[in-house]
Amino acid sequence: MSTNLTPAQLRDAIASGEHKGNTSGYCPGFVQCNVVILPKAYADDFLKFCQLNPKPCPVVAMSGNPGDTGIPEIAPDFDIRRHVPEYRVWKNGELVDEVNDISEIWRDDLVTFLLGCSFSFEEALLADGLEVRNISEGKNVPMYDTNIACRPAGVFHGNTVVSMRPFKPADAIRMIQICSRFPAVHGAPIHFGDPEAIGISDINKTNYGDAVTINEGEVPVFTACGVTPQAAIMAAKPDFCITHSPGCMVVTDIPNSKMAVL
Amino acid sequence: MSTNLTPAQLRDAIASGEHKGNTSGYCPGFVQCNVVILPKAYADDFLKFCQLNPKPCPVVAMSGNPGDTGIPEIAPDFDIRRHVPEYRVWKNGELVDEVNDISEIWRDDLVTFLLGCSFSFEEALLADGLEVRNISEGKNVPMYDTNIACRPAGVFHGNTVVSMRPFKPADAIRMIQICSRFPAVHGAPIHFGDPEAIGISDINKTNYGDAVTINEGEVPVFTACGVTPQAAIMAAKPDFCITHSPGCMVVTDIPNSKMAVL
Repeated sequence: MSTNLTPAQLRDAIASGEHKGNTSGYCPGFVQCNVVILPKAYADDFLKFCQLNPKPCPVVAMSGNPGDTGIPEIAPDFDIRRHVPEYRVWKNGELVDEVNDISEIWRDDLVTFLLGCSFSFEEALLADGLEVRNISEGKNVPMYDTNIACRPAGVFHGNTVVSMRPFKPADAIRMIQICSRFPAVHGAPIHFGDPEAIGISDINKTNYGDAVTINEGEVPVFTACGVTPQAAIMAAKPDFCITHSPGCMVVTDIPNSKMAVL
Repeated sequence: MSTNLTPAQLRDAIASGEHKGNTSGYCPGFVQCNVVILPKAYADDFLKFCQLNPKPCPVVAMSGNPGDTGIPEIAPDFDIRRHVPEYRVWKNGELVDEVNDISEIWRDDLVTFLLGCSFSFEEALLADGLEVRNISEGKNVPMYDTNIACRPAGVFHGNTVVSMRPFKPADAIRMIQICSRFPAVHGAPIHFGDPEAIGISDINKTNYGDAVTINEGEVPVFTACGVTPQAAIMAAKPDFCITHSPGCMVVTDIPNSKMAVL
């Protein structure tokens, strides 16, 4: 598959089964989103959880009414049942299936949340000439559980998960400036330097993703991560839930620049 | 003297000799400036030096023609000869006098530069609820020579001088965001963390100002400092030069908020 498809072309290729798997690197310049689909019985609490924890859980868009399969503000043709390359189906907090289409298990009470993802700000960092280590090393970004508690909402609770990117201090300052422009995709980092200060005992042991090289003179910079809501959902164990599989995102028609507040 | 004077009232009190010494804490909310006065033979090179090194040497205003004593854009009544509480007079790079009025030594070839000062961004940090350690400890901000070379211009050359304020990492991130809004008063910091990385061998030994406490879990954050141009002038040894005495600044009619780009 060409990575130069338009978002609509890629969504068509996903729906037809022509494109499977990771969306990383596809449709550069367009916002990609994490996916959380919950029964309406959980949706109000989950929205409140996102509102209370906007840095790890930035809501870019959500469906209007329970059962709605479209979200026209992210793409006129969007269909949540067929436009994600791979879905994970969860029951009572357990992963029970991975599928490429959820049309047959769709229900009239399901509510879709699309959450911002770091791809948008990583593109801005690269455009500014900064090295993003997980990209230059061809790895998944390293992610860690922290001791920073999220504010709970109903059944949803847990600690913040962070992604980590190493930079020299002067580059970290520039990275903070650039990411500050993108509050809807996790915004400014929440910590840098000493990993133990936020409960990370070994920077070489990730909880999700891959470890990356930290060179002499670089400091680890920690950003609130979209895995946080997934961890909160696993802890809440809703009777039914669907998420995207890691890296298999919703690709929207929204230019990344629209996520910049300035 | 009340610190609630208007800038014009304070300038009058300075001109009459009623107010002497430090302007720190006076006229909160208004821009204060560092002062450099040079013969026109040096002025073009000094302006170029500032242009090439905008973070340590941000020009807020300069006089229009050699010999001009007013700078109307900073205050309609401004008179550079009488509105600084204490001046330092330099000859061939040596401090030869400290005076409260330069009317008698004023020359028709002198050019005045007013450079941004950290008071403006410190006020914004305090307003945001951050602790500025040099203020809470009642000290002059600690300043250090670094190994970061300025770009030279004519006779002017030297290394960047930095000021240092310690913060916890999360507060340092907020400090970077706030200071980024104020490029005309040194802007974002240029380094944080390891002092040796920028040539500072002992953080407890300042080159200018006073050492401040750095608590467990805090990192030193380094900002380009307005002492840099003074160090460059001392190195250049112009035959004649006037500066303000440390802390005895020009108080302008410009609200600090006008220095914010956003």
